[in-house]
Amino acid sequence: MIGEHDIDRPEVRAEVEAAFAEYEQALVGNDVATLDRLFLDRETTIRYGAGENLYGYAAIAAFRAARLPQGLDRALDRTVITTYGRDMAVASTLFRRPNQPGRLGRQMQTWVRVDAGWRIVAAHVSLIEEPQSPAAT
Amino acid sequence: MIGEHDIDRPEVRAEVEAAFAEYEQALVGNDVATLDRLFLDRETTIRYGAGENLYGYAAIAAFRAARLPQGLDRALDRTVITTYGRDMAVASTLFRRPNQPGRLGRQMQTWVRVDAGWRIVAAHVSLIEEPQSPAAT
Repeated sequence: MIGEHDIDRPEVRAEVEAAFAEYEQALVGNDVATLDRLFLDRETTIRYGAGENLYGYAAIAAFRAARLPQGLDRALDRTVITTYGRDMAVASTLFRRPNQPGRLGRQMQTWVRVDAGWRIVAAHVSLIEEPQSPAAT
Repeated sequence: MIGEHDIDRPEVRAEVEAAFAEYEQALVGNDVATLDRLFLDRETTIRYGAGENLYGYAAIAAFRAARLPQGLDRALDRTVITTYGRDMAVASTLFRRPNQPGRLGRQMQTWVRVDAGWRIVAAHVSLIEEPQSPAAT
């Protein structure tokens, strides 16, 4: 059971923040080996992307390998990382790309700590029109 | 640390499957009280919806209260629930609505077990065009 004192322990949070930063750097740099490493190598790992639904580590790795490495730069906004206990975290962020004006990205990842380190077990990326009301962003 | 034997313990999985089913029934029935109850009442709880980004339990509850109760029927597809340890799970599913032909929904939720029971701490819902290739769905 997760109690209030189990949420956002500073030392756990620092680890996940580092893993999240490593992922982000690998993403904009199209460092496929690092992206692959940071997803848990299991059939249960799922990534819903901007236009594709990838079930299982192999499908995710195949998508990465085929991806064009252009236009990956992005600026993050309203990033929130919250840890639950010592082995689990969620990272949520909005993002905008210079080459996609008017579009707002949302990325949500669930991280789990396994023997080898922190790994993403589920991710969901989607793009919507930039909301007109500041209250809605 | 989560080991292989911690993943998908049958008794934990059964609990999360029940919570997921309760949520689904509440969603299509617009049972706002149940939907509210199943989200963790914290500022760190986040829900990215089809067109809105809701940070914090209060914003999520306000969105539920204002939602029109029509057209919520949907059929689920490729639902995968995976549990990690005894206190955490991810539920991912595709969905289609009769009133939204050609559109494919994706819903991903992260569940945490707290004192009161299983609660959603993060959710992301998005709609994309139905992929043309069966391999991509």
